[in-house]
Amino acid sequence: MNTILTTQCADDVGLIAKITGLCHQHNLNITRNNEFVDKDAQRFFMRTELSVQPNSEFLTQLEGLLPTGAKVTLHSNEKTKVVLLATKEAHCLGGVLLKQFEQALNIEVLAVIANYPNLAPLAKGFDVPFHVVSHEGLSRAEHDLQVGDLIASYNPDIIGLAKYMRILSPEFVGRFDGKIINIHHSFLPAFIGAKPYHQAFERGVKIIGATAHFVNNELDEGPIIMQDVTHVNHANTAEMMAKMGKDVEKTVFCKALQLASEHKLFINGNRTVVFS
Amino acid sequence: MNTILTTQCADDVGLIAKITGLCHQHNLNITRNNEFVDKDAQRFFMRTELSVQPNSEFLTQLEGLLPTGAKVTLHSNEKTKVVLLATKEAHCLGGVLLKQFEQALNIEVLAVIANYPNLAPLAKGFDVPFHVVSHEGLSRAEHDLQVGDLIASYNPDIIGLAKYMRILSPEFVGRFDGKIINIHHSFLPAFIGAKPYHQAFERGVKIIGATAHFVNNELDEGPIIMQDVTHVNHANTAEMMAKMGKDVEKTVFCKALQLASEHKLFINGNRTVVFS
Amino acid sequence: MNTILTTQCADDVGLIAKITGLCHQHNLNITRNNEFVDKDAQRFFMRTELSVQPNSEFLTQLEGLLPTGAKVTLHSNEKTKVVLLATKEAHCLGGVLLKQFEQALNIEVLAVIANYPNLAPLAKGFDVPFHVVSHEGLSRAEHDLQVGDLIASYNPDIIGLAKYMRILSPEFVGRFDGKIINIHHSFLPAFIGAKPYHQAFERGVKIIGATAHFVNNELDEGPIIMQDVTHVNHANTAEMMAKMGKDVEKTVFCKALQLASEHKLFINGNRTVVFS
Amino acid sequence: MNTILTTQCADDVGLIAKITGLCHQHNLNITRNNEFVDKDAQRFFMRTELSVQPNSEFLTQLEGLLPTGAKVTLHSNEKTKVVLLATKEAHCLGGVLLKQFEQALNIEVLAVIANYPNLAPLAKGFDVPFHVVSHEGLSRAEHDLQVGDLIASYNPDIIGLAKYMRILSPEFVGRFDGKIINIHHSFLPAFIGAKPYHQAFERGVKIIGATAHFVNNELDEGPIIMQDVTHVNHANTAEMMAKMGKDVEKTVFCKALQLASEHKLFINGNRTVVFS
Repeated sequence: MNTILTTQCADDVGLIAKITGLCHQHNLNITRNNEFVDKDAQRFFMRTELSVQPNSEFLTQLEGLLPTGAKVTLHSNEKTKVVLLATKEAHCLGGVLLKQFEQALNIEVLAVIANYPNLAPLAKGFDVPFHVVSHEGLSRAEHDLQVGDLIASYNPDIIGLAKYMRILSPEFVGRFDGKIINIHHSFLPAFIGAKPYHQAFERGVKIIGATAHFVNNELDEGPIIMQDVTHVNHANTAEMMAKMGKDVEKTVFCKALQLASEHKLFINGNRTVVFS
Repeated sequence: MNTILTTQCADDVGLIAKITGLCHQHNLNITRNNEFVDKDAQRFFMRTELSVQPNSEFLTQLEGLLPTGAKVTLHSNEKTKVVLLATKEAHCLGGVLLKQFEQALNIEVLAVIANYPNLAPLAKGFDVPFHVVSHEGLSRAEHDLQVGDLIASYNPDIIGLAKYMRILSPEFVGRFDGKIINIHHSFLPAFIGAKPYHQAFERGVKIIGATAHFVNNELDEGPIIMQDVTHVNHANTAEMMAKMGKDVEKTVFCKALQLASEHKLFINGNRTVVFS
Repeated sequence: MNTILTTQCADDVGLIAKITGLCHQHNLNITRNNEFVDKDAQRFFMRTELSVQPNSEFLTQLEGLLPTGAKVTLHSNEKTKVVLLATKEAHCLGGVLLKQFEQALNIEVLAVIANYPNLAPLAKGFDVPFHVVSHEGLSRAEHDLQVGDLIASYNPDIIGLAKYMRILSPEFVGRFDGKIINIHHSFLPAFIGAKPYHQAFERGVKIIGATAHFVNNELDEGPIIMQDVTHVNHANTAEMMAKMGKDVEKTVFCKALQLASEHKLFINGNRTVVFS
Repeated sequence: MNTILTTQCADDVGLIAKITGLCHQHNLNITRNNEFVDKDAQRFFMRTELSVQPNSEFLTQLEGLLPTGAKVTLHSNEKTKVVLLATKEAHCLGGVLLKQFEQALNIEVLAVIANYPNLAPLAKGFDVPFHVVSHEGLSRAEHDLQVGDLIASYNPDIIGLAKYMRILSPEFVGRFDGKIINIHHSFLPAFIGAKPYHQAFERGVKIIGATAHFVNNELDEGPIIMQDVTHVNHANTAEMMAKMGKDVEKTVFCKALQLASEHKLFINGNRTVVFS
C-alpha cells in the first residue's frame, strides 16, 4: 500500500481540483482516488493514494486551501494498531488473529483484553499478549476505567470488540470516540433481548446476519460499517443458526477491520462512507 | 414433474415406513422424497415424488394408516392456478408474467386484479385478463368482498399479492386461508411506517432485502417463505435503494410462487417448511 | 442523473487536477467522480458527474489539456438507445423489456431484431418494433449485412445480444466496434461445445453462472463486463440447471445494460473498467 | 448429533420402505431422512438420523434386505478423525484448526503433516501434533510412502489437503481411496498452469472461486463437493485477487470437512451427492 491521504470537510466548489492540484505541484502521483459528497449534510470525503510520501509542508498547505474545520490525515504504510476486547467466544477473536498470522490483514494486534480468562490459550497460540480484567467486584465505571487505562497504554488506532459481552459506559465510549468497532448479530426482522437466535428460530426466519458498526453514545447502535447474511432453513435449529451466525460475524468483523486498516472508513454523522 | 404426494400430520413412530410401504404395495416408484419432523410441535411433513399416478384407493388407504387429522394431497402435473393482485408497481407482476411466458414457472396466471388501471397494458401484453376493482367509494369490507368474489370465480390455488398496496380485512384473509402469498421489503434493522427506503438510507444500512410470506390473521406478518438481500453503499440514494430493493422483491416473489407450484411449501404454525 | 463526463487517455501526472480544475473554472460542480489508472497499460479512466451542463467550449478546452489521443465524451441525461438481437429464447429479451417498462433502466429499446419470429408477441406486448431477418438462404455475410443495415438505421448506442444464437462475422463486429454486449453461460470448470448444461451436470458442478462481455474480433470472448453465479446440487437435472442458468443470464445481461446506460463501462484492451 | 445411518446401493423398488420399516421394527425413531436416486446410474443414496443407537443385529438384517453390494454404515456421535496435509500457506490449515478450537466442527484433527516446517507454530498454537516430512532427496514414491505411513499410523477418517502443494502418486491416492479432500482455486473461465491469479487478472475476470473435491485417480479433478465464488473488479491486482481467493478457499474447505463430518457426502461415480 502507498501513502494514503484522507480528507473530510464541509463541501465546497473545486475541492477535488484544489487537493489534486496541490498534489500535482508537489509531484505526488495519485494512483487511486475516491471521493464522495453527502449533498444533504454538505460534507466532502476523499481518500487519495499517493505513490510518494509528501514532504512536511504538504499538509499545512493543504489545510490552508480547505474550509475551516477540515480534517486531513496522512497514513503511511505502517500497520494499523489494534487492541481487541473479548469475553468467552472465540470466533471473532480467532478470525482476526488467524488473518494477522496469514498476513492477510495490514494490522498489528497489540493485545487482547478480556473479562474472563477462557481465551488466553488462543491469544497465546498466536503470540499475542492477553490480559484478564475481571469485572467481578467492580462497578461498571471502575471496570471501564481499568480496561480503558490498559487500552490507552497500548495507544491503538482501533479497538475491536470481538464479542465483548459488556455494556460500555458513555465515559468509555467518549474516551475512544470514533475508534471502537463492534460486531453483532442481525436479523430480518430484528429481535430485541435475550436469546436472539432462539427468537429468530421461533419466528421462522430464512436469513440471519451480522452488522459491524462504530460505537457511539448517540444511538443504540452507531454508524454501520458492513453487513452480511447467510441463508437458513426450517431444518436448522436455534443452535445451528447460532453457529452459522458466528461464521457471518467472523467474516464481517474481519472485513470491517480490514477497511479500517486500509483507511477506507469515514464516519459521516450516523452513517459511514466506505470506499471499497 | 411427476405426481406429488404431500403429507402432514401429528408425528408418530414409523410414519415414513407406513407411507413408503403403501407406495411399495401399490408399485409406486418413489423418485424423490423429503420429510421433516418438527420435534417441538410434534408435526410430520413429507413430500414424495411418484413416477406413476396412484389409483383411486391409494389416498383412502393412506389416510387409514395415518394419525387422525392427517392432511394428504395428490398433486398431478397440472399447472398451479394463480390470481395476482396488484396496484401500480410493475416489477413483481411483470416478473411473474414474464416467467410464465418463458415457461420457467409451472403456473397459469388466470387473472390480474388491481385497484388501479395502470398495469392493464402489462397484463394485456402477456394476454392475461386484467380486472380493475377500484376501492373508491367502497368500505374496506365492500372492496374486499368484491375482490374476493372475483378471485373466487377463478378458483385459484394461490393468490399472489404482487405489491398490492391494500390492507386486507380478516374476512378476506380467512376466506383464502393458507393461499395468500405476499412480498414486502425487509431491512436490517427493520423500519416501521412510511418511506422505509428513506429510513434505511438515513440509518445508513448496507443491506436491503425482501421477504415473501403467507398472509394470516394471527400476526403482523405470517409464515416466512423466503428472504433475500442485496448490498447497498453510501453512494446509493433512497431512490436507488428502492430500485435495487424492487429487484430483490421480484426475485423472491417469483421463487416463492415457484416453490408453491412445486408443492414444496408447508405452513407449520407461524413458520414454514420449505423443501428446496 | 446528471451530465456525465467520461475521459480516457494515456496516463500522465496531474490529470485529475487538470480535469477538475477546468470544471472548477467553468463553475461545474462535481457531484461524483471515479477514476482508475491501469499502471501496466499506462491508461487513465475517469467518470465525472456534473450538476450543470458545460458550455460548448468546455470539451475543446479539455482536449487541449489532455495527452494526444484522449477520448472525452459528455453524456446528457438522455436515455441510452439500444437495439436488441434475439433468436428464440425469451428470458434476456423479456428481462430488458420488462425493466424498461418498469422505468428501472435509463434505456430506450428502439427495436428488436431476430432471425426467427417466435418472440414477436413479447416485443409487441411491450410496444417495441420487432423485425425478423431470417438467415434462411443467406450467407453469413449477407445476413450480417442485412441485420447490420437495419441496426444502423436505428443508430443505437448499444447493441445487446439477448441470446442471439448466431456467430457474428468480423465485418459485423468491426462495424459496431465497442458497442456490442453479449451474454453467455459460464461454468467452473468451463465446458466447450454443445449442451454445456448437460456437460456441467455430468461433471457434477455445484455452481453455474453467466458472463456479460463486449464482443470484439481479437478473442474468443471479449472484455468481461460482469459475471454472476448460482448454486446447484446433485438433485438438479441438466434441464433444471439450464432454467436456473437462464435466471443468472437475465440478471447479468440487464445489469450490463444498466452499467452501459449509466456510462460506467470502459473498454481497457482485453479488460473493462467498471465504476459501480 | 444422533446416530447416522448411511446407505448406498443399486436402486430398487421399495428401498425406503424396507429401510424405514426395519427401523420401525427396531423401535428406532427417524428424526431426519434424506435420500436421492440417480436414475441414470440406477444408484440409491440415503442418510437417516436415528434418535437411538441400533443393536448389533440391525446392520446384518438391513444388509439382508438390500441389493447385493449395498454399503451400509452406522456413524455414532464421535468426532470425525482428520489428518491435514499442508505446505507453507496458512489459511486453510488455520481455518480448520480455528473452527475445531471454536467447537464449530465435529472433527478431531489428529495431526498436521507438512513438507516444510513453516506452519509448525500454527499447529502448535492449537496444540495439534505437527510432523515435517521433507520431500528433499526423496523420489515421489518414497515421499508418498513416508507420508502415507505416517497418515496410516493415525488411522483417520478423512485426509484434508490444506493447500498441500504436491502432486500425489496413484499409489497414494489408491491407498486412501475416497478419503482425500482437496481444495483449489477456480475461475470463470478456467486458467491452466502457473500463476492462475495473474492469468485471471490479465483476462479481466469479475469472479474468482474455489472448489473442494475428492481426489481420485480417474480424473484430473475428482468429484466436486462444494464451490463458491467472490466478486472482484478492475481495481483488484493479481495479489489482491489471490488474497480474496484464499478467503473463499478457506470457507469452502471448512464447509467440505463439515459435510464429511456430518456424513452428508456420498461419492457417486464422478459426482457427489451432498445432503445439506
